[in-house]
Amino acid sequence: MTESDNNKQQRHKKRMQARKEIVDAGVSRALEERGIVIVYTGDGKGKTTAAVGTVTRALGYGYTVVVGQFIKGVWECGEKNLLTQLDPDKYPLQWFEMGTDFTWETQDFEADKAAALALWVKLKSALADKSVYLVVMDELTYALNYKWLDKAEVLEAIENRPPEQSVIITGRGAKQYLVDVADTVTEMKSHKHAFENGISARKGVEW
Amino acid sequence: MTESDNNKQQRHKKRMQARKEIVDAGVSRALEERGIVIVYTGDGKGKTTAAVGTVTRALGYGYTVVVGQFIKGVWECGEKNLLTQLDPDKYPLQWFEMGTDFTWETQDFEADKAAALALWVKLKSALADKSVYLVVMDELTYALNYKWLDKAEVLEAIENRPPEQSVIITGRGAKQYLVDVADTVTEMKSHKHAFENGISARKGVEW
Repeated sequence: MTESDNNKQQRHKKRMQARKEIVDAGVSRALEERGIVIVYTGDGKGKTTAAVGTVTRALGYGYTVVVGQFIKGVWECGEKNLLTQLDPDKYPLQWFEMGTDFTWETQDFEADKAAALALWVKLKSALADKSVYLVVMDELTYALNYKWLDKAEVLEAIENRPPEQSVIITGRGAKQYLVDVADTVTEMKSHKHAFENGISARKGVEW
Repeated sequence: MTESDNNKQQRHKKRMQARKEIVDAGVSRALEERGIVIVYTGDGKGKTTAAVGTVTRALGYGYTVVVGQFIKGVWECGEKNLLTQLDPDKYPLQWFEMGTDFTWETQDFEADKAAALALWVKLKSALADKSVYLVVMDELTYALNYKWLDKAEVLEAIENRPPEQSVIITGRGAKQYLVDVADTVTEMKSHKHAFENGISARKGVEW
């Protein structure tokens, strides 16, 4: 090994040691074991997709998962194809959708509200069920921002859920009350989007 | 229906119509059909998870997927449990890892670099393979920023890939050359993190 190689190796080792100390310190500080509330918001790609990734992860450990989709009701989705066809004894998943078309196709406030409320009844029951490890409320921000659902009722159900249960909420425009109830909030911020440069949404990647 | 209900319905309809026009205009503008490059970067949760969600989605349509993980090599992962145990004829997936431990545990630049290069050889071959619909290079930014890989070689392989193939790159600190090669760039921006408030990373949700 040349002296330059040796120096490089030493610098690398020092940098990695510094990282390790930060990680170790964090690990020793983080002690509380309980379910968490994650909010994925912002205008960028990846909110629903990250929720789907977490569903795959939780099912991979055999945990029970309930998914409710407030907007993407009638679209064919690759992830739904796969996840809902798994052996339900090994991978216990319930997947609920709103019974209307995409809201900007239907343009009927009362019908959308009724469909959202019907979905909410199922999710509220999941939020009170100890056997459910993860509840995903996809595009919940729309259902709240359009006032289809009662905000206080939703927040109360989240706060009173079983302590082992985690919740993922997705959608643009998460209000401060959702940030407050969350343990982890990530904003998906768009810096560049294929769509804006005349490229179609890609099957199997974006939907 | 009262007059107030009627007004509300009209306002809702108008708002939905406006959205529909925006969506329709976008759809008519976006014409090019080809594979895309997505970069998920930033300090927030959800980068790898969004990549996993996309893998689930693509497999759900029966597309061939290749995943390479540059950092999370030896951790047990729920999503890997599930996805790698599927019927490979129905859901064709190859999952590669770097053969070392988490880098801040090993602290050996040459060993990490050799392991990264071995993984890169497999990914480069996937990037030249027309039968592969989606290539995920998880935590590639680390491998580039630590100079384990040759930047020019990586960019060339991405640019010369089959036109139908999409690529997902994840990791903190994506440099401008990755933004330039990408069609879609989302920054996962952390606004709040459970870990910082003394809550352990949750099994089946965060790992």
